[in-house]
Amino acid sequence: MSRRAKSAIQFAPRRDRVLADIQELAKYGSVGPSAITRLAFTNEDLAARKFIISLMKDAGLQVAVDAFGNIFGKRPGRQNRPSVVTGSHLDGPPMGGIYDGTVGVLGGVECARLFNELGLETEYPVEIAVLAAEHLDRFGLGCLGSRAISGKLKQLDLQSLTDRNGITIWTALEKAGFSPERLETVRRTREDVLAFVELHIEQGPVLERSREKIGVVTSISGPTRLAVTVLGETNHSGGTPMGMRRDALVAAAEIVLAVEGCAKAEQEYGTVGTVGVVQVEPGSMVAIPGKARLLIDIRSVDWNSKQRVLRCLEARWSEIAQRRQVEVEMAVSVDEKPVPCSPKIIEVIEMAAQGMNMAVRRMPSGGGHDTQHMAAITDVGMIFVPSIRGISHAPEEFTDLDDICRGITILAGSLWQLGTSCSSAPLSPAKT
Amino acid sequence: MSRRAKSAIQFAPRRDRVLADIQELAKYGSVGPSAITRLAFTNEDLAARKFIISLMKDAGLQVAVDAFGNIFGKRPGRQNRPSVVTGSHLDGPPMGGIYDGTVGVLGGVECARLFNELGLETEYPVEIAVLAAEHLDRFGLGCLGSRAISGKLKQLDLQSLTDRNGITIWTALEKAGFSPERLETVRRTREDVLAFVELHIEQGPVLERSREKIGVVTSISGPTRLAVTVLGETNHSGGTPMGMRRDALVAAAEIVLAVEGCAKAEQEYGTVGTVGVVQVEPGSMVAIPGKARLLIDIRSVDWNSKQRVLRCLEARWSEIAQRRQVEVEMAVSVDEKPVPCSPKIIEVIEMAAQGMNMAVRRMPSGGGHDTQHMAAITDVGMIFVPSIRGISHAPEEFTDLDDICRGITILAGSLWQLGTSCSSAPLSPAKT
Repeated sequence: MSRRAKSAIQFAPRRDRVLADIQELAKYGSVGPSAITRLAFTNEDLAARKFIISLMKDAGLQVAVDAFGNIFGKRPGRQNRPSVVTGSHLDGPPMGGIYDGTVGVLGGVECARLFNELGLETEYPVEIAVLAAEHLDRFGLGCLGSRAISGKLKQLDLQSLTDRNGITIWTALEKAGFSPERLETVRRTREDVLAFVELHIEQGPVLERSREKIGVVTSISGPTRLAVTVLGETNHSGGTPMGMRRDALVAAAEIVLAVEGCAKAEQEYGTVGTVGVVQVEPGSMVAIPGKARLLIDIRSVDWNSKQRVLRCLEARWSEIAQRRQVEVEMAVSVDEKPVPCSPKIIEVIEMAAQGMNMAVRRMPSGGGHDTQHMAAITDVGMIFVPSIRGISHAPEEFTDLDDICRGITILAGSLWQLGTSCSSAPLSPAKT
Repeated sequence: MSRRAKSAIQFAPRRDRVLADIQELAKYGSVGPSAITRLAFTNEDLAARKFIISLMKDAGLQVAVDAFGNIFGKRPGRQNRPSVVTGSHLDGPPMGGIYDGTVGVLGGVECARLFNELGLETEYPVEIAVLAAEHLDRFGLGCLGSRAISGKLKQLDLQSLTDRNGITIWTALEKAGFSPERLETVRRTREDVLAFVELHIEQGPVLERSREKIGVVTSISGPTRLAVTVLGETNHSGGTPMGMRRDALVAAAEIVLAVEGCAKAEQEYGTVGTVGVVQVEPGSMVAIPGKARLLIDIRSVDWNSKQRVLRCLEARWSEIAQRRQVEVEMAVSVDEKPVPCSPKIIEVIEMAAQGMNMAVRRMPSGGGHDTQHMAAITDVGMIFVPSIRGISHAPEEFTDLDDICRGITILAGSLWQLGTSCSSAPLSPAKT
């Protein structure tokens, strides 16, 4: 079969089936219309995983669950390895939406069904993955499943990272029936993963605003996360004259604005800075805050730009601390480099789109994804579909069903292209 | 007995006894060294009240508890009424200090003991009061006991105001063994309360910084309390470019700075503005806050100055809302006028100090007190003793025992002066 012929296959996802899957999956952890709370390894998450396993089995996939709870539904190829892997996650933040992660998992399952229905046979196995614990809300660190696969997660992390109730990852894994003591067995290598492609909602407003339907990710931004604590002096709000205060919150307010200002100065590089969490103590109507804590998230696909933001911030809060006579303490919880996607996979995705006469937009991913950890062991790529108003991690998160189906079409074309490459070594398709 | 002779009585509080009382009382609701959590009508509060009742009985006082839980320990006079009343509160905020309220209650009890030990007989009864639920932390509104006494609290309030667990004041009163249905019986009038004097820690740094030992309050500031809600748009912190955001927290940060700026512009009038509480939603490291809520406390003894701060704030947040395309909603929870103390009582306190060769500083009270509600039914005055570093409502709250004893001396002198006035009508002592 020639490359041209392969590209010409029309992968037409069944809208009704995809919609029914999305609606059914949204029931697991439902906390309101299109709102779900499905934190990693909770009962809601485990039930959702069971549902996906049943869909995988219905599609004839060979299901394996590793010691960390990552699920792989395998559609065999003529050769036994390496596999072309796609997938995403099922867990999310409290009061999250029903498309984040979901679209990539269900999209992968739909691809397997389409391959079945078209009677297609691939050279390499195609695996649909549910990667465990992608969202950071439970344990403060995200992409745990893909970190485990790529060998970045250590036994120590499993015992040191805890959720709000003090439950370690280790305990959560054991309670869910997995095997933290066998963490090492979870690792996969370049030898058995030929490529990893993730379909995901954009989680930003760029595609919608530019009226484009498909994004191909060039690079995934690396987050730097800081916890900043401002220490002033708690005092009575009525009895303390304005000139005698060391108010931790007003200093923190200046830092919030500094995060915005320093990031805006770098916006041409796509750099962003956000304060998502603020806590003050004692937190009383009648007390000047003596302590304020900010959690800051800075991201960029440009490492140098992110460093400039960090230096800008340091200069700002030094000045604020001195002027306001408060102490500013800073701790870095995450500091990751941006991860470029594989040029070969970008080209495969673009070819798949071209075959369907769809335009794609090359764009960075501001959000973090399992893909960036899979990049440590294989060639990776991501397909974005539009998020309405850019909203994600909220019940208003929405992606049009037509756009989801377009994404699945491109994913199927890409998996087909990758799965039928003549050799497992060079992926880049020849331009004929 | 001439006025001069009365002033000359040396009231010498017993240091060891006062210290022992403070230490014993600090055990009720203790949550750490000099830290107490004794919210209104909780078991800790009720136990502390029992301890004070036992002290009152030991001092021979006739103890009565009204339907709202206010305690009055009465030392009879030659006449049956009106009474000269002193007192303060026993409840406080979470993680509060051991002097707020305490000093006024124990100081009153010590005065009664000194009167006993000196064999003094007053014309009018002297009552030591424990006023219930002064602190606003449990029900969002403070001075509940004194509001009930002055007729400002309504049955409706008892059923509408709740604590964090949804428990109404009504239910809390019933659970504590009091009688909310008999709220009306709690009212007292000018006919049976000749005067009310409260000894209290300053809760501000003014006396300490000026190295003065006794403050006499001229006026008690009226708080205006606002809940400001900023509505922006929740979005993914990684996927949303800086220019496409409607971040509720950065807008709220500007409002925090506006509160400081608008109040500072009025600081010559003693006006203060504080944001003590900030909450953001969804409150995730990876989400741009879509909602931020601020609780703002503005106080002044100058009504016009406070109005200027409010107008300044309104102008600022209108501008912020427009520029940042967020909505700003505002609700007023409290809006009280400043309450002047009685010139007669101010003079009585100053005379008592003069008799002891102590200098006093006339000063406003930035903090709110039961005294401002008692002012609705009688002549009122307040005596301040220094707060180290101005700290209050925190475990670091501290007032030197010598300063407390000085305050008790002045309180005793004032109660003696008031209790032996020849007539219940005009209080102002003739200057001879």
